Amino acid sequence: MEGEGCLATLFDHVSDDDLFGAKTWEIAESEMVKVTLRNLFKKSKDPKPGFLLGGDLLNQCTASSFGALPFQIPYLGLYGACSTFAEGLLIGAAMLESKTVPCGAVFASSHFSSAERQYRYPLEYGCQRTPTSQRTVTGCGAVLLQANSKARSPACLIKGGRIGKIVDGGVTDANNMGAVMAPAAADTLVSFLEEHGENAQNYDLILTGDLGSIGAELFRELCAQKGVFLGEEYIDCGTQIFSQEQDTHAGASGCGCSAIYFAAKLFKQWQSGMYSRVLFLGTGALLSPLTVQQKLTIPGICHLVALEKEL
Amino acid sequence: MEGEGCLATLFDHVSDDDLFGAKTWEIAESEMVKVTLRNLFKKSKDPKPGFLLGGDLLNQCTASSFGALPFQIPYLGLYGACSTFAEGLLIGAAMLESKTVPCGAVFASSHFSSAERQYRYPLEYGCQRTPTSQRTVTGCGAVLLQANSKARSPACLIKGGRIGKIVDGGVTDANNMGAVMAPAAADTLVSFLEEHGENAQNYDLILTGDLGSIGAELFRELCAQKGVFLGEEYIDCGTQIFSQEQDTHAGASGCGCSAIYFAAKLFKQWQSGMYSRVLFLGTGALLSPLTVQQKLTIPGICHLVALEKEL
Repeated sequence: MEGEGCLATLFDHVSDDDLFGAKTWEIAESEMVKVTLRNLFKKSKDPKPGFLLGGDLLNQCTASSFGALPFQIPYLGLYGACSTFAEGLLIGAAMLESKTVPCGAVFASSHFSSAERQYRYPLEYGCQRTPTSQRTVTGCGAVLLQANSKARSPACLIKGGRIGKIVDGGVTDANNMGAVMAPAAADTLVSFLEEHGENAQNYDLILTGDLGSIGAELFRELCAQKGVFLGEEYIDCGTQIFSQEQDTHAGASGCGCSAIYFAAKLFKQWQSGMYSRVLFLGTGALLSPLTVQQKLTIPGICHLVALEKEL
Repeated sequence: MEGEGCLATLFDHVSDDDLFGAKTWEIAESEMVKVTLRNLFKKSKDPKPGFLLGGDLLNQCTASSFGALPFQIPYLGLYGACSTFAEGLLIGAAMLESKTVPCGAVFASSHFSSAERQYRYPLEYGCQRTPTSQRTVTGCGAVLLQANSKARSPACLIKGGRIGKIVDGGVTDANNMGAVMAPAAADTLVSFLEEHGENAQNYDLILTGDLGSIGAELFRELCAQKGVFLGEEYIDCGTQIFSQEQDTHAGASGCGCSAIYFAAKLFKQWQSGMYSRVLFLGTGALLSPLTVQQKLTIPGICHLVALEKEL
């Protein structure tokens, strides 16, 4: 479905087999991570990265650890739910800034079928989905980070960022992730803009990770309530992966959603000179099936990465 | 059991109620995280940390996210299995080195009862445990990291470290975590010493996280095979939490094991001037119940943190 959606022509690799030759969905997700990292390292002429930051949605993040295993690169596992890719960019940038290694890599993955059976129901049940639900992206995105920013032109520099606080909006509906994450995204964006004395229109693009169509509308409203008015410069990755005809209800979600949009589309647009200043906001819902069963509310988190052409 | 074990007198807080006043083991673990962080921030006279790095063993690391929620500190979730505390120290040090914030905090937790029912069987089954099995520590350890190293004396400085590679020794027995993690620990320690042209005896203490008695012996052997001979300076936290009489078979394990040893014992020893050079190695097993059911081998990882009195 991802290969037939809006980004179809932009991916390095589309597999017709969502099992990636494996026997189970979970091993399939690890295989997908391997394919992605292999592609990344093949495309890169740089030396082997000094670290690898990654994560996914599976219990104990095994898609990432089994996917990273064959590459034998120092590995740090992250869990930021669907905000993992942005979390990796922030930590990776700090590690390069500390000048201990010149180069590292960041990835994040999700798989529709491994996520469905872990978080919801076995696919064979054929459950009906609510209008607010989103479809977990089967995809993995990865990027290389380098300390030597002069190496590429136009450079895509991580100028700064904001680590998000956990925000609990009191939502308990595990089929409405947009509503869970929107308050966290608004909190992070508004405080970042306030801190820097800027407004949304100072940026060419403000990109949230996977709020979906309902969450993105809510995010606009919450920002407006706080005096930040978002215009045409605002896009949510969750509304950009699948086409209307594919009918995924509220759009796309998952760690892979923002990771593949970033790597396949945003980075190419950046290289074509389309953008100079972009805010990338990774959004995550910090639930587990068990916290939902135990009737806890679902907190959200959102990490912001500020990208600029020049430091 | 932790409060009756070897470190009994060293903890800031011992609870007689392993439910910490909560209704479920998982919420109990979050409550334990809250108690620990509250204690940390009360003891510290420093400003509010700029970031909080933490993780645990529960699916989607919810003990950490729900535990961190009330403090409203920018939060980055980690998943390094039982190596999480060491992973947090390395990432935290890099973040301070990047000079964006002057202070941050790191924590890691585990809970015997939440881990048992998630990874193994409900406690009510009363399963027999194999001789190689270890007991997951019910405990949470947390530390404050500061960029201004002159603030305390004797300072405990993170001088360097080594992010571990994922090492797959081919072990499939989920009740023998020591054997899973020992090859990763040996790989990290030996390559660190080689890189710095040092031997084990250059350090006052070499401390592994939770290899347990069987894993620690295996670790000694694997190091010796690679020409690194460990003497009296080597200790494993997993053998130091519970007493012989408590009969936990191969010892203690879990994210909390090395975290509570570090915070309750090592740090106090350091402050008394006992050590000048210490290597702290966080060990982790990157399995999930599902990867075991799917007959995958269990890879291990080990991150090394080098602590020194002076830079």
